[in-house]
Amino acid sequence: MNKEQSTSQEKETASLKNDLLLRAARGEAVERPPVWLMRQAGRILPQYRELRASLSGFKELVETPELACEVTIQPIDELGVDAAIIFSDILVVPEVMGLRYEMIPGKGPMFPMTIQIEEDVDKLIAGEKAALQLDYVYKAIELTKAALNGRVPLIGFAGAPWTIMAYMLEGSGSKTFSKARRFLYKKPISSHVLLQKITDTTIDYLRGQIKAGADLIQVFDSWAGILTPEQYRIFALPYIRQICEAITEVPVTVFAKNAWFALPEIGQLDCNVVGIDWNTTPQEARRLVGEDKTLQGNLDPCLLYAPEDKICATTHQMVHDFGKKYICNLGHGVYPDTPLDNVKIFVDAVKSFTFDS
Amino acid sequence: MNKEQSTSQEKETASLKNDLLLRAARGEAVERPPVWLMRQAGRILPQYRELRASLSGFKELVETPELACEVTIQPIDELGVDAAIIFSDILVVPEVMGLRYEMIPGKGPMFPMTIQIEEDVDKLIAGEKAALQLDYVYKAIELTKAALNGRVPLIGFAGAPWTIMAYMLEGSGSKTFSKARRFLYKKPISSHVLLQKITDTTIDYLRGQIKAGADLIQVFDSWAGILTPEQYRIFALPYIRQICEAITEVPVTVFAKNAWFALPEIGQLDCNVVGIDWNTTPQEARRLVGEDKTLQGNLDPCLLYAPEDKICATTHQMVHDFGKKYICNLGHGVYPDTPLDNVKIFVDAVKSFTFDS
Repeated sequence: MNKEQSTSQEKETASLKNDLLLRAARGEAVERPPVWLMRQAGRILPQYRELRASLSGFKELVETPELACEVTIQPIDELGVDAAIIFSDILVVPEVMGLRYEMIPGKGPMFPMTIQIEEDVDKLIAGEKAALQLDYVYKAIELTKAALNGRVPLIGFAGAPWTIMAYMLEGSGSKTFSKARRFLYKKPISSHVLLQKITDTTIDYLRGQIKAGADLIQVFDSWAGILTPEQYRIFALPYIRQICEAITEVPVTVFAKNAWFALPEIGQLDCNVVGIDWNTTPQEARRLVGEDKTLQGNLDPCLLYAPEDKICATTHQMVHDFGKKYICNLGHGVYPDTPLDNVKIFVDAVKSFTFDS
Repeated sequence: MNKEQSTSQEKETASLKNDLLLRAARGEAVERPPVWLMRQAGRILPQYRELRASLSGFKELVETPELACEVTIQPIDELGVDAAIIFSDILVVPEVMGLRYEMIPGKGPMFPMTIQIEEDVDKLIAGEKAALQLDYVYKAIELTKAALNGRVPLIGFAGAPWTIMAYMLEGSGSKTFSKARRFLYKKPISSHVLLQKITDTTIDYLRGQIKAGADLIQVFDSWAGILTPEQYRIFALPYIRQICEAITEVPVTVFAKNAWFALPEIGQLDCNVVGIDWNTTPQEARRLVGEDKTLQGNLDPCLLYAPEDKICATTHQMVHDFGKKYICNLGHGVYPDTPLDNVKIFVDAVKSFTFDS
């Protein structure tokens, strides 16, 4: 299936005033690379922090479509980025599968219940039945599409199956995710059952997002980098591949953080864009991924603490080094205490770049 | 300076009943690869946990030479490993430079005072004056050498300057070490002053360890992987290079975790052994490091939760894939809850390997 020839997609693109992201994702020529930031919605914006302070918690934001829409829109005019990304969390998927998460301020996500034994896997809800419960995300996407009114494309997203599995086993963030990785070694068959359930749910969830209006889908494999190359090949890639093959309506981005060792295989997936972290130089990324895909990344988020001239020079160098087939972004989410002015300096630096400069 | 020709070293080696580690480190032929485990002293051993429970805390163990000696020796006969590594912590260096650390049970290291501004760097003690305060480590090494009585070589160690700097700025472990990395971008000159001070102290400290009897030195750059390749080249490698060039009496191992991007440059250092993490296959490690060095690593510590046949098969495959010039180890420290029997299965699997098998 050639994702570039989907009719519905062309219609969508046609109605966009700024379709740089989608053209770059499809490998088409662009006058300058599009730019957006992972985690641009929230955190760094004073208007977000103000809204957030008035609420009971993070989940109220995620689960209330009007609020999720509002914070998704906030960075668009404020920062002048070329894409919106729906404000949500990858952990909504394990939640509708049966493992509720909490967001502990200053600590991060926490699951009161986790997968302990093989039988816990069997109890999980999967596929459409689970994905239907994510109606609040679809509604948020619909509202956001209406509010954006064609200004920029809207990105939908989900966690990659391995990353979701890691949280389901570990119950929180972890430096090693050793409980989750231990399960891979001790219970490989159950691991595959679990990963398939997550995959089925994720595909239905992403289809729901696309139906609601998402213009591009990004799959985040945030904990890719703690697996061995062999484990990644066995337990991660086949499920990402299923997702890539199932999503035919819009471009797909795969971002497997710290999985440099899998970049050649990710380059063979039926996706359009490959996310790159800041450990990999643009030249090395292109060498590993091959010529086919658009690359996205990869500024060190810490660089946005640097003086203005350093931000501009490093950004220009990066954009130059990535060259064509490129979407400009950070190599990971923007850090919460990044000065807003520096984010704008970064965005403006990209916009001032032209391919003959 | 050719580290293989040091006379004192040859004398040391001659008195060892098992000198596999040193011969492998120097690239000499061995009948089978030597094996030891990072963090083999402590954690996994019941006799360690018993001793630890009777003490006021972790630091009492580190700072009491008789106790540090005892726990260094414990795994030698229990596990049958081919090397001892002195029980200590990389954070003793920042402590003698002026930043005291605490070890919080269940949380890890914590520094009540950290480097906040450039002036804090100037106040730090460095070089011999700092290293002299680490007399308790030298004493522990002397006691351990006596107690080992030539059974196996004793490894001394220190943190790499960047990793030590990261803790000095951050004050604890961190997923991003963004405070430390921010300092690199905002205060590059002060960063170099700080890194030089740490380097000077580390060189004196390692010389003290060698004088006390350490047979090989390992430099741990545990937080190498959070830097960009450019930052690693500017702020990490030059200081590791100084250490490698200063230590001429014994073989040196450099282990820069997750810094696959720097392996070609690490392969050019004046060191004997390069540590490899479990993200890198043996073949890729050899390709990146080149033919010159001995490689050390890189079993996923999580594999030691797997069934016996899986541990044996994976270990044999790894040893086979690394081939000659190889020291068998994990790709990181052994996890605290690893079953002791599985550690023994791993060690025995290496010992049952022969190069023609």
